[in-house]
Amino acid sequence: MSYEVTKSETSYTGKVFNIQKDTIILPNGKTTIRETICHNGAAAMIPIDENGDIIFVKQYRHSAKSMVLEIPAGTIEKGEDPLHCAIREIEEETSYKAGEMTFLMKFYSAIGFCNEIIYLYLATNLEKSNFNFDDDEFITLERHSLSESLKLIENGTICDSKTIIAILTYKNYLETK
Amino acid sequence: MSYEVTKSETSYTGKVFNIQKDTIILPNGKTTIRETICHNGAAAMIPIDENGDIIFVKQYRHSAKSMVLEIPAGTIEKGEDPLHCAIREIEEETSYKAGEMTFLMKFYSAIGFCNEIIYLYLATNLEKSNFNFDDDEFITLERHSLSESLKLIENGTICDSKTIIAILTYKNYLETK
Repeated sequence: MSYEVTKSETSYTGKVFNIQKDTIILPNGKTTIRETICHNGAAAMIPIDENGDIIFVKQYRHSAKSMVLEIPAGTIEKGEDPLHCAIREIEEETSYKAGEMTFLMKFYSAIGFCNEIIYLYLATNLEKSNFNFDDDEFITLERHSLSESLKLIENGTICDSKTIIAILTYKNYLETK
Repeated sequence: MSYEVTKSETSYTGKVFNIQKDTIILPNGKTTIRETICHNGAAAMIPIDENGDIIFVKQYRHSAKSMVLEIPAGTIEKGEDPLHCAIREIEEETSYKAGEMTFLMKFYSAIGFCNEIIYLYLATNLEKSNFNFDDDEFITLERHSLSESLKLIENGTICDSKTIIAILTYKNYLETK
């Protein structure tokens, strides 16, 4: 099926994303507008500590107007390798280094209107680093077993798509290992 | 922790989303800007046919510049009940009605910068409807068993967060039923 772009412009330039406004021709010949949030992508990781527990970060999310429990993640810098971003972000958000960072999968967070791709890793063999939190980061850490984490999805405490995917994927990973 | 908003404006008005640009004061007294994609939210459903297979829709996604395999979903209209949206969308996208629509969970698709909440349902007891596809909808249907669907996640064919969550949640649902 053909979807020819006849006009393309950046209609908004933001801090974390831009908006691309494209005019496209549908297969039936009609013309329509598609606005796409253009985002560099993100790396996220499910860090497993020495007891097999998952390390979460809790932080204020302005989109939800509340504190939210998530796996660590961060935005990929322009041209940065996702794995490099994952290695950087786990240390910045948890002050742990990962001895091993295993790629699990990648996915679009909101494919209907946004091109953000999240690269998901399993972070194991953690080692405390000397990293000092940034002045502007207000993150606390929480640890939960896999079964606790599944309950936190069920009761709605965990409500972030990448964190839900990470926990359910880790469960499958352990089952098939 | 306090995050007071000192200024708030709509910095972009789009077809499917707006952008809210807020100035907020961090707990350390510093001021920062948060841009949030404001979206009405969406209802998505995992439709199970008479053979236990999952019904998917395949459609062009401009964000991915390709045809993408997803569960059916659609944007909630202003003031619309998510369940009502789910009932409407499954018929519009698959031309099936769901005899039963069971709420599974809700989650933020991209919590870092977007307030979209997706309400996920399990759609069963499907019945063919007389619905005629919209002129501007170019959707084909595909059916896959749960185990095929899990393989399509593994090999990257399914790369949409809500669809991954739906399949993995449905697997858990069957295991604990």
